[in-house]
Amino acid sequence: MAQRKEIFARIAQGKLEWGSRISDKMLSMNWTRSAGWTAPRIVPSDKLTLSPAAMVFHYGMAVFEGLKAYPSHSGPPRLFRPDLNIARLNASAKRMALPTVDPTTFMSALRGFVHAQAEWVPQSPGSSLYIRPTLIGTDPKIGVRHSDSALLYVLAAPGGSFFSSGYDGVRLVADPTFVRSWPGGVGHYKTGGNYALTIAPAKQAQDRGFDQILWLSDKKERKVGEVGMMNAMFVFDGPSPHIVTPRLDGTILPGITRQSIIDLAPGLGIEIEERDIWLDEVLQGLRDGTITEAFGTGTAAVITPIRSITYDGVETFVKGNGEIGKLLRKTLNDIFYSKQPHPWMIPAAPFDTKTSFSERKVSVSYA
Amino acid sequence: MAQRKEIFARIAQGKLEWGSRISDKMLSMNWTRSAGWTAPRIVPSDKLTLSPAAMVFHYGMAVFEGLKAYPSHSGPPRLFRPDLNIARLNASAKRMALPTVDPTTFMSALRGFVHAQAEWVPQSPGSSLYIRPTLIGTDPKIGVRHSDSALLYVLAAPGGSFFSSGYDGVRLVADPTFVRSWPGGVGHYKTGGNYALTIAPAKQAQDRGFDQILWLSDKKERKVGEVGMMNAMFVFDGPSPHIVTPRLDGTILPGITRQSIIDLAPGLGIEIEERDIWLDEVLQGLRDGTITEAFGTGTAAVITPIRSITYDGVETFVKGNGEIGKLLRKTLNDIFYSKQPHPWMIPAAPFDTKTSFSERKVSVSYA
Repeated sequence: MAQRKEIFARIAQGKLEWGSRISDKMLSMNWTRSAGWTAPRIVPSDKLTLSPAAMVFHYGMAVFEGLKAYPSHSGPPRLFRPDLNIARLNASAKRMALPTVDPTTFMSALRGFVHAQAEWVPQSPGSSLYIRPTLIGTDPKIGVRHSDSALLYVLAAPGGSFFSSGYDGVRLVADPTFVRSWPGGVGHYKTGGNYALTIAPAKQAQDRGFDQILWLSDKKERKVGEVGMMNAMFVFDGPSPHIVTPRLDGTILPGITRQSIIDLAPGLGIEIEERDIWLDEVLQGLRDGTITEAFGTGTAAVITPIRSITYDGVETFVKGNGEIGKLLRKTLNDIFYSKQPHPWMIPAAPFDTKTSFSERKVSVSYA
Repeated sequence: MAQRKEIFARIAQGKLEWGSRISDKMLSMNWTRSAGWTAPRIVPSDKLTLSPAAMVFHYGMAVFEGLKAYPSHSGPPRLFRPDLNIARLNASAKRMALPTVDPTTFMSALRGFVHAQAEWVPQSPGSSLYIRPTLIGTDPKIGVRHSDSALLYVLAAPGGSFFSSGYDGVRLVADPTFVRSWPGGVGHYKTGGNYALTIAPAKQAQDRGFDQILWLSDKKERKVGEVGMMNAMFVFDGPSPHIVTPRLDGTILPGITRQSIIDLAPGLGIEIEERDIWLDEVLQGLRDGTITEAFGTGTAAVITPIRSITYDGVETFVKGNGEIGKLLRKTLNDIFYSKQPHPWMIPAAPFDTKTSFSERKVSVSYA
C-alpha cells in the first residue's frame, strides 16, 4: 500500500523509470502438452521458480505482449484493443512452438486480472497501467526441441509518459551495420530474441548522442524498418496529408498503435499507405520538403516525433511542426481517457477462476 | 547416487534422451554492474529463483555455450578446448550487452566444477559429460535496456551418442521459407533467440519425414548456411580430398568442432577451404559426383553424415562412402578419449573458491 502510493507519487512527478516497478500480483497459467492449460490464478509477483535447464534460459523460447489499462474515472479501468494483443500473442507463440490460448477465455482472464489490480492503475494525467503477458517454455531439458510445458503470466507495471524528455522529438541514427530483422525471419513476432539484439546497438547509438536507431534492411537497399521499438510513419505533403508506413513484409512488427492509426486516419481526412519506403527516399523527401513530418508509433509512447535522421555522418532534420502527429496523439488519447464508451476500450470485469476456465487439452500446431 | 546409476545405465543402453537429465550440482556466479562478479559457488541444480520481470524472460538476454568433459580412465576428466568456448561466450555476451568473464578465472572455475562433478562423467564408450555455461540478464525491470545484473551458471548433463539413429546419415530439407540468420544479424553468436526460431520449422521438417534443415540465406541466392544446429562441410573430389565449409560471414556460428577440423585437416592430407557455397553448386556437385561426401559438425554429435538434400520436392543423394567423415571422427575421438596428453584436452582440477576469485568490478563494453 505504502509502496503503491510511493510509485504513484513518482509517476505524478514524472520521476519513475518506465517499467521499473511491477504491481504486487500477477496472473499465472501453466500449460503441459498432456493436460493443457490450468485455470488462471492471481498470485504474488515476487518470484518465479524454474529449473536452470528450463528452455527459456537457453533457447529464447519466450514471447510477450504489451498493452495498457487506462483509468476510466467513473468505472473500472479499460484495456485498449486487447483482442489484437491476444491475436498477436497467439501468432508469436505458434511461430516459437509455444502453446496458444483460447482468445475468449484469455480475454476474460485479462479483464479479471485488471479488475483485481484496479487500485494499481495510476490516475495522474497521461498515466496508465502497462500490462505485460509473458509466455515462456519451461521444459527442464537442454536438448533443442519443442517444450512440453510452458508458463503464461501477466505482469502489471504502473507508468506515466514513456519519454521523460516530452515531445521534442528523437534524434535517430541510421546505420546498416546492425540489422534487426530479415525476410524469412521473425521480426514480425514479439519474441525475446528480437529485443536482445537491439540493446548493445541502442546503447552504442546513445553513447554517440542519438536517442534511437532507425533500422534498415541492409547496406545496399536500405529499406526503412522500425524506429527503435516503434513503427515508423512519414507524412508526405499534398492536397491532403498522406502517411506512408512500411508494409508488413515479415520484418515489421504489426503494431497495435500502427493499426489503430491506419483505422483512424481516413476519418480524420488523412490518407495512409502501407508500402516499402527507402532511406534515400526519406532523406530526399526531408531535404526537398516533400516529407513534412515523421514519427514512431507504439504502445509505450503512443506517438514519438522524429527530430532528425543521421546517416553516414550527415544529420537531416524534419522541418514541419508535427501537426499530424499531434492530431493523432490527441485522437488516441481521447479514446484512451474518455468517459464515453468506445468499441476499442474493453472494461475490466471480475472473473471467477473456478467457472471461467476448466483444465482442458489445447492442441499445438507448428508454424 | 541411485539417480546417477540409473542415468548411466540408460546411457549405456542408448536409451537416454540427449540433454534430458542434469547432474545434481551447478556452478553459479552472480554479476552486478556495481560490484562485478561474485566468487563462483557450486550449488544444487534444482531451482533458479528470479523475478518474473527479469529481462531474460522478456527480451531474450541469454547466451550459452556447450562443451564436453571426457572420461580419461586414468586421471581426472578432460575438457575439449574450453578456451575456445570461453572466448565465444565473451563474444556472445558482449553482443547481447551482458558482462564478460575473465578467461583465466573462468577456466579455473570450469575445471574446478568438472573436478567436483567427476563422478557424473559416464564411462561407457562414446559418452561424455556435456557442460552448459548459461549467462542471463536478471534485472527485474521491463524496460528494454542493458541489464545491471546477470547470472552465469554451468550445468552438467551426462550423455551418450547424440543421434540414437547412429551414423546412417541425416536427410535434410532445404527450404528458404524460413531463414535462420542474416547479414548484420547475430547468427554467429550463441544466443537463445537463434535457437527459438528453429524449433517450429525443425518440427515441421520432421513431420515431413526429414531429420534436419539445411538453412539457406534467402530465396534468391540460396547460399548454404548451417545444417540444423551444425556447421556444414562438403567434400570435393580431386587428387587429394578437399573440404569446403561456409566462411564465417556473420551468419554462421564459429563452431569449435568446425575449427578443430580446420586445424586438423592439413595434417591428414585434407585441404580445407572456407568460402561461400551455394545450394545450386552443392546439388550440381552431388549429381555429377564432384561432391563425394557431406556432413555436419558440432559439439553434440561431432560429425553427422548427410544422406540426402531435398529441395523443391527433389531429393538428391550423397553417393560416397563417407570415408573423410569417418577419418575425422576417428581422429577427434582419439583425441577425446586417448589416455595420452593432448594440448586441446584440459584436465579438471580442484579449485578453491575462496582464493581463486575475488569480488571485483568488471567493465562491460558494448558491441
